[in-house]
Amino acid sequence: MRVKILGSGAGGAFPQWNCGCSNCRRLRLGSFHGSARSQAQVAVSGDGEAWFLLNASPDLRYQIEATPELRPRDMGRNSPIRGVILSGADLDLCLGLLLLREWHSLQVYSTAGVRAAITGGNRFFSTLERMPGQLNWQEVDQGTAHPFQCDCLRFSLLPLGGHYPSWVASSSECPAEQAVSAIAIETGSQSLAYLPGLPRVTPELVETLSACDVLLIDGTFWSEEELIQVEPNGRRASEIGHVPMSGSGGTLEALSDLGGVRRIYIHINNTNPVLDESGPEYRAIREAGWELAFDGMEIEL
Amino acid sequence: MRVKILGSGAGGAFPQWNCGCSNCRRLRLGSFHGSARSQAQVAVSGDGEAWFLLNASPDLRYQIEATPELRPRDMGRNSPIRGVILSGADLDLCLGLLLLREWHSLQVYSTAGVRAAITGGNRFFSTLERMPGQLNWQEVDQGTAHPFQCDCLRFSLLPLGGHYPSWVASSSECPAEQAVSAIAIETGSQSLAYLPGLPRVTPELVETLSACDVLLIDGTFWSEEELIQVEPNGRRASEIGHVPMSGSGGTLEALSDLGGVRRIYIHINNTNPVLDESGPEYRAIREAGWELAFDGMEIEL
Repeated sequence: MRVKILGSGAGGAFPQWNCGCSNCRRLRLGSFHGSARSQAQVAVSGDGEAWFLLNASPDLRYQIEATPELRPRDMGRNSPIRGVILSGADLDLCLGLLLLREWHSLQVYSTAGVRAAITGGNRFFSTLERMPGQLNWQEVDQGTAHPFQCDCLRFSLLPLGGHYPSWVASSSECPAEQAVSAIAIETGSQSLAYLPGLPRVTPELVETLSACDVLLIDGTFWSEEELIQVEPNGRRASEIGHVPMSGSGGTLEALSDLGGVRRIYIHINNTNPVLDESGPEYRAIREAGWELAFDGMEIEL
Repeated sequence: MRVKILGSGAGGAFPQWNCGCSNCRRLRLGSFHGSARSQAQVAVSGDGEAWFLLNASPDLRYQIEATPELRPRDMGRNSPIRGVILSGADLDLCLGLLLLREWHSLQVYSTAGVRAAITGGNRFFSTLERMPGQLNWQEVDQGTAHPFQCDCLRFSLLPLGGHYPSWVASSSECPAEQAVSAIAIETGSQSLAYLPGLPRVTPELVETLSACDVLLIDGTFWSEEELIQVEPNGRRASEIGHVPMSGSGGTLEALSDLGGVRRIYIHINNTNPVLDESGPEYRAIREAGWELAFDGMEIEL
């Protein structure tokens, strides 16, 4: 399995268009020890030919063009991108679907709840239904392995608890337990777990994650109140579905016993001090055995 | 008035993610005599401090960061972007609104019909209503001049005929005549007309355009059937609201008598042969006195 990290930032990316926080300001000035990051986006392939996207970020157009493997290979309209697996309904996970609207046939896999949340009453999506077979949206049960792409890869959606984004009106069409999933991708012998959002850590989740080879997981915030410090209207990390890295119950502590799992933080918010590679937070995660995903990172497993 | 061209391409940009046409292929190979173009986006300012966006492209995040004038100037959350004027409801004109969702107060101006087309039933837009005064959408009558930005600029929306995009269900909330407008911006003595879509040319329109100083107008297609040649599902230029450049009734012919008006093509599709600056089509427009907008272009008037 080949894994390409097309984007490693959180919603809004780094730098963020309307943010003058210390990280964003120093990055623009060229004095920051770290790199810009587009919004979180991963692509996987079993054979290096057909590619599947894990979520669809608002930066997808730029991310595809920056990745030679994802560019058209023939004349006329074509693309090696076959489909999209969605882990949730947040706009930074799904807006990119609307960027793939130029008469291209796509498979989309999500829970029924996430599909209803995204498309319910939203006529923008009619633009993806202009030709027969343009968008084949398949609702997937959580916890079951589904084959895709010539049987060499399988994927599962694993329920994580958490909530739909605040713009989703609560309705019976959007069952709460289907709001946020981990995406697990496996070959016969190797597995990747992708969790750009992590509402909470349970003993069962730790056990599941212990069994994977590579873990790409929520690195949105360093601390619980980080967002409030730059944005008075902001909320605590736990209120918007993210366990922070540090502190009691943070992922550095809660996921310290994952044995031989390669652990990589992704979906890193522009405010997170870990982005500064000369700082103590970055040193702390590296000393604890973690990596920080970056745009263009490649993983083979 | 300062005018910045942040993007000069049509929907899908150049190169387009799933396109292997001659233009896109040669651009990727580095053998093309012309430059990449992001999706059409213009910003204007009367004082160089407060900026207004003409439409909101899906590439807006990258376009803002590439433009020093539009980056935050202070610490914390802030932006010199005050608002957006919409000329229509196409996704390449409005999706960028959803990229400006990080707790920033914005004025949005459009016809009532365009507002209804974009926001009708679309709960994505609730994300722009999370704090009081976040999105102040003002419905504007066509043909009337509206002041904005410390009275030094005024704008008007001028009806052009044409249709809403195909994903808009026909409804009485979306009056046909409000679907597509020109945006005219004027200072006391100078004026700019912006028409990224041009459904048809009428004698009245020619008269109106003759009175402006700078014209930024629909350069989507060179010829009527250009899109069908690369995409069998594609439609004729006139079916999707664009008068082509060439041929009988094309803009080169129909707008040849605009006197002293500075005439610039924008919203140029990836398939348009005019993008090749070594080709006869580019030579033809230059010899006819036209310019081709490019990303990063600046105009002062």
